[in-house]
Amino acid sequence: MPAECVIGVDLGGTKLLAGTVDAGLRVHHRTQRPALADDPKGDAATVLDALIAVVDELRSTAEMEVVAVGFGIPALIDQTRGVAVMAVHQPLAEVPFGAIMSERLGLPVVVDNDANAATLAEYRFGAARDSHTAVMLTLGTGIGGGVVIDGELFRGSQGAGAELGHMVIETDGPPCFGNCPNHGCLEALASGSALAREGLRVARAAEDSALGQALAMGQEITGALVTELAHDGDRAARDVIALIGMRLGVGISNLVNIFNPDVVVVGGGVMAAGELLLEPARQVVAQRALQPSRSHVRVVPARFGAESGMLGAAALALDAVEKRAPA
Amino acid sequence: MPAECVIGVDLGGTKLLAGTVDAGLRVHHRTQRPALADDPKGDAATVLDALIAVVDELRSTAEMEVVAVGFGIPALIDQTRGVAVMAVHQPLAEVPFGAIMSERLGLPVVVDNDANAATLAEYRFGAARDSHTAVMLTLGTGIGGGVVIDGELFRGSQGAGAELGHMVIETDGPPCFGNCPNHGCLEALASGSALAREGLRVARAAEDSALGQALAMGQEITGALVTELAHDGDRAARDVIALIGMRLGVGISNLVNIFNPDVVVVGGGVMAAGELLLEPARQVVAQRALQPSRSHVRVVPARFGAESGMLGAAALALDAVEKRAPA
Repeated sequence: MPAECVIGVDLGGTKLLAGTVDAGLRVHHRTQRPALADDPKGDAATVLDALIAVVDELRSTAEMEVVAVGFGIPALIDQTRGVAVMAVHQPLAEVPFGAIMSERLGLPVVVDNDANAATLAEYRFGAARDSHTAVMLTLGTGIGGGVVIDGELFRGSQGAGAELGHMVIETDGPPCFGNCPNHGCLEALASGSALAREGLRVARAAEDSALGQALAMGQEITGALVTELAHDGDRAARDVIALIGMRLGVGISNLVNIFNPDVVVVGGGVMAAGELLLEPARQVVAQRALQPSRSHVRVVPARFGAESGMLGAAALALDAVEKRAPA
Repeated sequence: MPAECVIGVDLGGTKLLAGTVDAGLRVHHRTQRPALADDPKGDAATVLDALIAVVDELRSTAEMEVVAVGFGIPALIDQTRGVAVMAVHQPLAEVPFGAIMSERLGLPVVVDNDANAATLAEYRFGAARDSHTAVMLTLGTGIGGGVVIDGELFRGSQGAGAELGHMVIETDGPPCFGNCPNHGCLEALASGSALAREGLRVARAAEDSALGQALAMGQEITGALVTELAHDGDRAARDVIALIGMRLGVGISNLVNIFNPDVVVVGGGVMAAGELLLEPARQVVAQRALQPSRSHVRVVPARFGAESGMLGAAALALDAVEKRAPA
């Protein structure tokens, strides 16, 4: 099908990334919007309208016929009903997402958890290729998780498994974000939101640092800003990234002991920090995880960076098209 | 094979339990010894001799022919080589356990991780029967873990997975036990060893309690003693059990979010505390785990109590006999 393509859409907690993707998983067009509010009590219609607008935009510019759309959304999906059962960072709980989108777009629609989509892309085409057991963490507004065992995405008894970001590593730690009732979760300590929280704390304490000066000049201390200043060499910003990396390492150590994976892939927007984040994490794994697992595992960045989720959503859509095709 | 039986042996960190078991998984004789030292740097030969002695004792009293022996040992087993790769609580690292035992006993021998054996028994015949995804924790000297996914024990890429006891729930928590390099693990906070550690702390602080009086009279504060006093109604001892139960609940919440299991089975010697331990754990799960998983999961005691591991080892031996039988 040379003249056909699909659209992959990755809806995160605060960012929306979508692309037109062909059967070889090449991206022809991409678009990103920061527009969606991180408000789990907000309006589902607003979110759905924004998603429709993005798909329509890509469809109008596509050089090939768009034959299906894949969505990765930050929610637990009941695959039997096509309903988003629980959503920590978006107002999508109990929304029959797949049916609504398919009806409004007039196209076959596939929907899965955003981290599952990212994991699928990395397993099939990226950093987890050729592994038997693979674990992925997507560090964004929240932390998503995905697990592949023997070639299959692990979903648990109801499709609600692999919520790896909501593993407590600090029993009396800070409250988690969004709809999560827990505290001291990996997400509460090592997500992009946690990076911003720690960045603000350090900015207040280290007035002479570039981070402190940014705060004094009225800049909002975001994870992206901390990362930028860390890459520029600011010591305070680097310490914040290293702290997040060490916490990440505790979470990864747990996952290494639990899953004995061949590879742990770290993706999502926070991975813009690169080795400044990943190297402290690896050091913690080397100190804390059990043998033989800790010597065996590779802890690596996602091959597709912040695009894993979008590509995975596209891959799901391509799968659906293939199943639809006459034998 | 009405006149045949197997022997199942469960080697824990400090206890050794063995039994003669028929094809219907009925136990005909059982024997228990507290003799083996919890010394991972001790002498492997001493441990192996003790295991041989137990098997010989059961064999001499068995009314049926013993046709195979199954061992559950607290170690990671490399099933391709039959070697214990890593052992937190026994001096068995790099010991070719299966080959030695088979040679010395002159019988087919099967060996697996002790918690995997326990999980298998509960999945096939006990509290996890008819589940799709099941998680088991065995609370003894240490904490063992087992996971069944879609009817199969989950082992990870090297057979070293499901080390659920070495999941950190307190990043700066107390050092773990045995050979574990980590600290703040579930095992460090909620095992039988942790129960004894907390019991001693509370006994020193609460001099008027039955626990404090036991300490003053020179009794060793063990997990078993704390449990006994808690059942007798001592408030201090009950508080210790409840504390361990709440920590256990944090660990179970993590496992509920990670695996979305139908059931979490809690076994091992510490489960002598029963609902005094399990009810606080369930309350924490109800507060901290995500939906829909937390409403779906059952958190239940092992059906076979402290005998799950021994029965699972016997079941593995029965499987081996069945495979051996002519078609």
